[in-house]
Amino acid sequence: MNNNKWKNLDVLFNPSSVAVIGASSNPAKLGFHVMKSLTQGGFAGKIIPINPGTREIMGNQVYPSLIDYESTIDLAIVVVPAGLVAGVFTECAKKAVKGIVLITAGFKEIDDPAGTNLHEKIAVIANNSGIPVIGPNTFGMINFQARLNASFTPEFSRLKEGDIALASQSGGIAHLLGFLAMRGDVGFSKIIGLGNRLNVDFSEIIDYLMDDDATRVIMLYMEGIDNPTHFLAAVKKHQHKKPVIIYKTGSAEKSNQAAKSHTGSMAGKPEIYQGAFSQAGILSLNSAQSLLDTGKALAAAHLPTGDGVAVLSGQAGPALAACDICEAYGLNIVDFEPSTQESINTFLPPLALRTNPVDMGPAWYDASAQSGIIRAAMNDHQVNAILLLTMFASANANLLEELSVFLTESKPTKPIISCILAPPGIWDESIRKLEESGSLVNYPTPERAAMTLANLVKYRSLQLRPTSDSKG
Amino acid sequence: MNNNKWKNLDVLFNPSSVAVIGASSNPAKLGFHVMKSLTQGGFAGKIIPINPGTREIMGNQVYPSLIDYESTIDLAIVVVPAGLVAGVFTECAKKAVKGIVLITAGFKEIDDPAGTNLHEKIAVIANNSGIPVIGPNTFGMINFQARLNASFTPEFSRLKEGDIALASQSGGIAHLLGFLAMRGDVGFSKIIGLGNRLNVDFSEIIDYLMDDDATRVIMLYMEGIDNPTHFLAAVKKHQHKKPVIIYKTGSAEKSNQAAKSHTGSMAGKPEIYQGAFSQAGILSLNSAQSLLDTGKALAAAHLPTGDGVAVLSGQAGPALAACDICEAYGLNIVDFEPSTQESINTFLPPLALRTNPVDMGPAWYDASAQSGIIRAAMNDHQVNAILLLTMFASANANLLEELSVFLTESKPTKPIISCILAPPGIWDESIRKLEESGSLVNYPTPERAAMTLANLVKYRSLQLRPTSDSKG
Repeated sequence: MNNNKWKNLDVLFNPSSVAVIGASSNPAKLGFHVMKSLTQGGFAGKIIPINPGTREIMGNQVYPSLIDYESTIDLAIVVVPAGLVAGVFTECAKKAVKGIVLITAGFKEIDDPAGTNLHEKIAVIANNSGIPVIGPNTFGMINFQARLNASFTPEFSRLKEGDIALASQSGGIAHLLGFLAMRGDVGFSKIIGLGNRLNVDFSEIIDYLMDDDATRVIMLYMEGIDNPTHFLAAVKKHQHKKPVIIYKTGSAEKSNQAAKSHTGSMAGKPEIYQGAFSQAGILSLNSAQSLLDTGKALAAAHLPTGDGVAVLSGQAGPALAACDICEAYGLNIVDFEPSTQESINTFLPPLALRTNPVDMGPAWYDASAQSGIIRAAMNDHQVNAILLLTMFASANANLLEELSVFLTESKPTKPIISCILAPPGIWDESIRKLEESGSLVNYPTPERAAMTLANLVKYRSLQLRPTSDSKG
Repeated sequence: MNNNKWKNLDVLFNPSSVAVIGASSNPAKLGFHVMKSLTQGGFAGKIIPINPGTREIMGNQVYPSLIDYESTIDLAIVVVPAGLVAGVFTECAKKAVKGIVLITAGFKEIDDPAGTNLHEKIAVIANNSGIPVIGPNTFGMINFQARLNASFTPEFSRLKEGDIALASQSGGIAHLLGFLAMRGDVGFSKIIGLGNRLNVDFSEIIDYLMDDDATRVIMLYMEGIDNPTHFLAAVKKHQHKKPVIIYKTGSAEKSNQAAKSHTGSMAGKPEIYQGAFSQAGILSLNSAQSLLDTGKALAAAHLPTGDGVAVLSGQAGPALAACDICEAYGLNIVDFEPSTQESINTFLPPLALRTNPVDMGPAWYDASAQSGIIRAAMNDHQVNAILLLTMFASANANLLEELSVFLTESKPTKPIISCILAPPGIWDESIRKLEESGSLVNYPTPERAAMTLANLVKYRSLQLRPTSDSKG
């Protein structure tokens, strides 16, 4: 292990100069798409395409080899065939490159001793020179703070900058989460395709992201790892400094075989992993969508300080749907304190459902009554979070705008998780503004809103448990 | 019971003339929004606003009362205060109106004997005259075949016409499903807000929709009903003529109280309902999104004839996510027949994962190899359905267009449930065309695609069981 590696990891993510070894102007080559990502993603540093056969790519002067480039190179993105990689690594070491993104596949993940040998050979070169390597067999990585898209997917640059870092063992799942995030308006600090983890594994990336000021939440997608103990210890030692949430696949027998083949490591028994995750304070989610939903809330909302929830809904049906999830996943739909109930009663007629869940139906286009109800629930000591549900109708079209004034001004200290939904294009902008102001976190269904709140409460309970490290 | 009621139900959904009793030109009144729905929704019949205080609304001549209108009226939409409804019903009976949509609330759902009395009073009038009534306490209904938007939400007219009928006990959930369907490009034949079911309950609507040529799938949202036996018998007697799928809330204790208050009936114990649904061949889903996902697939895809699935994925991660769901929900990730395996082997290099799940990674932008793999899996006798997963990347941008040619020409006889996902605007149109051609049914995550396939297989197994009626 070389200490430089950790210092260099920061340069890897924040380089001043980036070489693309295997850069190409042929769209059939990945080296073309990497160049497109770099040049179109807004990266302000120097871009150095390396290719012995051409002189200019996308307006950048091409060099025949790394050695031919006169100045320093911080990051090398490597997209040449596997057989050439060892030679490239040797040149990188000579050139004192600080970090490598190795997109090329054909190493340990192929079920062939030649791949494993090659993997070990380049690992020795990288480790001896203290060069951290993202990959091999990765789509790359994106650092949104540096506007550095070091991946073969230029479209990742469409994502907005945010507080969530994603480290994924699968390129497919990273793309899935990225595309879902584009549709759900979720932002990222970094997206990292760990690939086959030559010398930057989950443990190393956890260490790095815990110290990364731009990252508030660490989101992981995992199939299987060689050294779970090492990973769990890496998370534990940071003592809940930032939420770590995980989606792990490979629980099915067939998946297990597939994961082994895909990542070169066993996927393992789900019950063992789940227990170990909880022990380390890692919240485990069971789908890509749920991982993203939970990450979004953890990045945006205060953590509820207990499991008490007020369900406030413009329509009864969505309230029932949310309540079913709340009760099934351990949230407490509290009885309001008498003063809360009295206050709510002033806003709704006697025959309405005024206890928790509150059917705000009679006030479904009355923003001032709804604001009063939300304020009353917010002040209730039993209530730790609010589920706010509202479906658009033509008659309540102005509700959200009026409600927004109250919600942004009241600066809620307890999280409001909402499902405010309208036909496309009607309330989207208002909801985006409410989310940006930190007033609420919105989801397209009452069930997903309730499930996300349950996950926040679950994360908090993991946080309250001492990790085994702090015990020992 | 009056036999005319059933004949009249067809006129209610397909009227030549529609009166709006309580029509208004004041946007603060629901009567305004109903008029907007009717006039802007494309309804070709006669629209007759009724209001004693005004002369013209949205270009339509207003009449002071029903009696003042000289010609016949098929459908009356009623939005006057509860106290006036009995009088309106009497006029409707005199005028030989064929059906009523009663939007007004304040009947049995309010915990007050006065409401119940009123409910019973108007029920007698309607039943004696054989007038079917949708409502009270409903947003209305939409018949997409007739372009009749008889609801207070003009935006429902944005939905496309399709094969799914939705009957919902909650307006909020109907709006939720409608807005989700707009985003997911799902079409409806009818959306019906049953409200408090004066004389058109789930049983009656099942009977009607089973005979409705425009409806292929019946989707229900239920909170609680007074006469479950009657409802279950209504479904059973049609012997699986069309799929009936249901989302029932009210399983939580708090929901149960809320449901009672909301709909005037007990929500009941979930385990009892679930068992009864299965017995009647009704597939029960556990969220609004899952109801819609399953309805979409049942309307569009062939039913798989068994539980054997081939998982074909452009990337390994999404395949693992799908496999976990497949195995957890009873799908069989089959071992391919030798001839299938041989054929697939010709399209992928030896070191790729070529058994099921197939990682088409090495051919991730090779449409002809992928087509060959899909064809081979489709011809395998063990395979009853295909899960096809593909994430966009810049390098495979043309894949879908090329794959589309194969998929549309090959007219697959086994369902292809897919998760083909790209950044917004890139593949949307191609996916829409593939869905329209009946080539596949697409979902935004591998987990939802796999879950939907599991639900199709589950529905088929319910269909194979004799219903208790046919046994007895």
